[in-house]
Amino acid sequence: MTQQTAANDTILIFDTTLRDGEQSPGATLNVEEKLEIARQLSRLGVDICEAGFPIASPGDFEAVRRIAEEVGPLTEGRKDGRPMVIAGLARANEEDIRRAYDAVKVAPRHRIHTFLATSDIHLKHKLRMDREECVEQVIRSISFARTLCDDIEFSTEDAGRSDPDFLVQVLGEAIKAGATTLNIPDTVGYTTPDEYGRLIAYLIANTPGAEKAIWSVHCHNDLGLATANTLAGIQAGARQAEVTLNGIGERAGNTALEEVVMALTTRPQNFNLQTNIDTTQIARTSHMVSTYTGMVIQPNKAIVGANAFAHEAGIHQDGMLKNHQTYEIMRPEAVGLNTSKLVLGKHSGRHAFRVHLREMGYDNLDDTEVVAAFKRFKKIADKKKVVTDADIEAIIADEIYQPPETWRLDHIQVSCGDHSIPTASVVMTGPDGAQYQDAALGSGPVDAVYQAINRIIGVANRLTEFSINAVTEGLDAVAEATIRIQPIEEGDFTVNPQTSKAIYRTFSGHGASTDIVVASARAYLSALNKMLAERDKRPHQLQRITNEPTV
Amino acid sequence: MTQQTAANDTILIFDTTLRDGEQSPGATLNVEEKLEIARQLSRLGVDICEAGFPIASPGDFEAVRRIAEEVGPLTEGRKDGRPMVIAGLARANEEDIRRAYDAVKVAPRHRIHTFLATSDIHLKHKLRMDREECVEQVIRSISFARTLCDDIEFSTEDAGRSDPDFLVQVLGEAIKAGATTLNIPDTVGYTTPDEYGRLIAYLIANTPGAEKAIWSVHCHNDLGLATANTLAGIQAGARQAEVTLNGIGERAGNTALEEVVMALTTRPQNFNLQTNIDTTQIARTSHMVSTYTGMVIQPNKAIVGANAFAHEAGIHQDGMLKNHQTYEIMRPEAVGLNTSKLVLGKHSGRHAFRVHLREMGYDNLDDTEVVAAFKRFKKIADKKKVVTDADIEAIIADEIYQPPETWRLDHIQVSCGDHSIPTASVVMTGPDGAQYQDAALGSGPVDAVYQAINRIIGVANRLTEFSINAVTEGLDAVAEATIRIQPIEEGDFTVNPQTSKAIYRTFSGHGASTDIVVASARAYLSALNKMLAERDKRPHQLQRITNEPTV
Repeated sequence: MTQQTAANDTILIFDTTLRDGEQSPGATLNVEEKLEIARQLSRLGVDICEAGFPIASPGDFEAVRRIAEEVGPLTEGRKDGRPMVIAGLARANEEDIRRAYDAVKVAPRHRIHTFLATSDIHLKHKLRMDREECVEQVIRSISFARTLCDDIEFSTEDAGRSDPDFLVQVLGEAIKAGATTLNIPDTVGYTTPDEYGRLIAYLIANTPGAEKAIWSVHCHNDLGLATANTLAGIQAGARQAEVTLNGIGERAGNTALEEVVMALTTRPQNFNLQTNIDTTQIARTSHMVSTYTGMVIQPNKAIVGANAFAHEAGIHQDGMLKNHQTYEIMRPEAVGLNTSKLVLGKHSGRHAFRVHLREMGYDNLDDTEVVAAFKRFKKIADKKKVVTDADIEAIIADEIYQPPETWRLDHIQVSCGDHSIPTASVVMTGPDGAQYQDAALGSGPVDAVYQAINRIIGVANRLTEFSINAVTEGLDAVAEATIRIQPIEEGDFTVNPQTSKAIYRTFSGHGASTDIVVASARAYLSALNKMLAERDKRPHQLQRITNEPTV
Repeated sequence: MTQQTAANDTILIFDTTLRDGEQSPGATLNVEEKLEIARQLSRLGVDICEAGFPIASPGDFEAVRRIAEEVGPLTEGRKDGRPMVIAGLARANEEDIRRAYDAVKVAPRHRIHTFLATSDIHLKHKLRMDREECVEQVIRSISFARTLCDDIEFSTEDAGRSDPDFLVQVLGEAIKAGATTLNIPDTVGYTTPDEYGRLIAYLIANTPGAEKAIWSVHCHNDLGLATANTLAGIQAGARQAEVTLNGIGERAGNTALEEVVMALTTRPQNFNLQTNIDTTQIARTSHMVSTYTGMVIQPNKAIVGANAFAHEAGIHQDGMLKNHQTYEIMRPEAVGLNTSKLVLGKHSGRHAFRVHLREMGYDNLDDTEVVAAFKRFKKIADKKKVVTDADIEAIIADEIYQPPETWRLDHIQVSCGDHSIPTASVVMTGPDGAQYQDAALGSGPVDAVYQAINRIIGVANRLTEFSINAVTEGLDAVAEATIRIQPIEEGDFTVNPQTSKAIYRTFSGHGASTDIVVASARAYLSALNKMLAERDKRPHQLQRITNEPTV
């Protein structure tokens, strides 16, 4: 029996960073990155982890299956001592549902999450079915899903624009057919808190059998109201909140986990509700998701932005300690900031490094990976007096969770300045094991490196985003470069069957170094390698259902 | 008579980007940047522009005065044909109020905005006064302000945590003393929409004379609820919203102008309210504020993030045109995206360039500035086939709105790579007109440049933030570098009298180039020049009241 039940004062946190979050343009994650994020979500205390959309592609299926297998059983550090429920998304048809089940079934606790649109605009333009057909498909799909698994979530896509009385009818049938969680998505981020709260209250009050299911809220942030809408839904009786770290997701993104959890935690007298989240893991999870997806966090982002607790900077003088409440409603320690930053230096040995990695939660690295990371660490320690946890996270992200290396960068040399022509020379090892070298000019040093790499590899692409950020303070900081590229050859897009739009795949790469040109080169090669790996899977890719909007 | 009145269905937009927004750590703007932003706020249709806190320093006073003088009279492109009200902030005492008045009085429409904390925690720990003294000070200050000016706004700092009945008392006295706008700030971002809406409704229902004043809402985003709280306050009867572009401000920032305006615009049936904002100016204003303050916008930021309309990318096939509503609640054109990008190339002449600058709204550049910008434009056009509006905005920001040049960068040459020691040589002209040159090694090319510059200038500082972003797509894009530095010598901080905390001044600089190393060098020198200019004003700086939290 894997069914999820909620105590009446506990809000279940359903994290969809790996499914709805990964649908952000360019946020594509590889399997290793997904596994590492899933492990961290488990430490964070997430109740349900939506690991992906298994039918979308063989790669997506494999990622969900491996999360179910490797992360599904973990219980370490979890408040309630139980592992996460691993959920897989499926459209409301047998094939999707069976595929989702096959991907998640190995997890001790698993869930099938199926959905169908209920708004007239979606029924008419996208699904081309009438309301009666919609109800029949819901009953058929949920009944089938229940033959596989006890824990079934059903979502009414675009509920925010659906007729409430039709929702009552559909949801009543869903409960009768065996759905155990009912999710009401505001798919287009259209509602206001009043409206959304009223909708949830109305559905709970009027749906036959409402008391048998857990009600769930899923909001989008197009008007900046996702957190408020989610809280309004909770106040109206919902007991599951669907969220992502840093609020990533399509368009303006999903509800931010950290905002909902900290609102409930900071204002207990208003909500009188709790979660199973270990809030001190928030900062680290947020940083990991930002690094791996390449989705930067603005400094004024609530809870996890660099400035969110910036009034903490500087010296506390005089009475500040006793009256910090004058300008502070929560302590940075509560979200895991300002915790000890262990100082490793150039004299730290491999053992100390390994122990420290384990303390940081990297307990699944094999010897080769630790050795590779240690090498990079020593290189940085030579240039930089103090190596912090943030530096180490950047090294691990750069060294371990990279796509398979089709091409490897061996050597790079650049000369540039404002009165000379930027020139780069590059030496690389190709998939055939042979070394290639070339030089090129560019409009700047990074462009010159890209041109030299392009001369060797010769794959057309266009750069859609490029950014560099210092990981830590100081002139000698490690910098992380993130770039996104899109293939530009004919046929390098898929068509979303839901929206009939062309989807250009975007590939992101990240690279870390104290040298921004080297970091940029690594990032570019990492994105190129991802793109080339995907190309080799072209036959699969053609069958790929895109990652476009669902719930 | 300069008093602001609001039609019952119009929400007045009070923009405090230049006051509360500029309080973001490191967002410091120079006078030219403030003037340019103020001009753009006027085009955007902002009703009241809070230009600064005049008593804070002579520089702040001068910025407010020049905005009042140069931007105060502008009416071009404004829906109601009237110029903006220019407001200056003042604590509740005669000296502050007089200084604020002197700064704004030259504007055809001007306002004094005065404030005093009303929560017990602030009264006790910060102000060390009792409630009775608080009421007396409010009456005294507003009565004095009314001897100078008819348009008086009063804010009850930390209202979100104040006793509502005490607020009723204070606000009733404020109205009697002559306040025309009453602002209820949730200073610490503590309230939820329900709570805040109830508070506004309670105050309007119970404050004697409530109908004589315009009620205003001012929210902070610590829990991600600023927009929802602002809308709840509006639904409870407030008719002025205090906001900033991109939601910048201390900690997690203020309410985002673009979110409130677009929520009101997108859901007219819910609110039945309008604003005087020209929404098609939102994207440009947002980009300008982000560039000048160096506060990046995350891709999933509502309305103005790079992904906010990302479902627009790619080809619209088949039925997408007729059913774009399936996934879209507003059109990108509504906020000024996807508007014509005029293509200038290397053959464009100075006249065409000047005409285009004027079309972009840069109508206040003198000949020298146009010539300087044109030179930079030609240099970029040589390297890049197509120069877009975004490139030109970056050039203007980099070329025109820079601090006075104490040191000028003449020449820079760098060599780097992963197997060599990054080396930079730099030639600069100093304040004495003489040329200086030196070389240095570094952990990367940017560090090497910094070290070389530091060898010449010799001013201790530490880098607190460094980022580079491509302005436009493509490998040969112009990149913008932003860096923030803090002086690290003894005495290089001021103490905030409100909180008794040390405030390290932060100086930000930005630089643009197709070469990221050159862009970084420019950014560093721009920040250094700002820091050096501030040092020359040291006697003033010591008297400076910091920019720390107010309302």
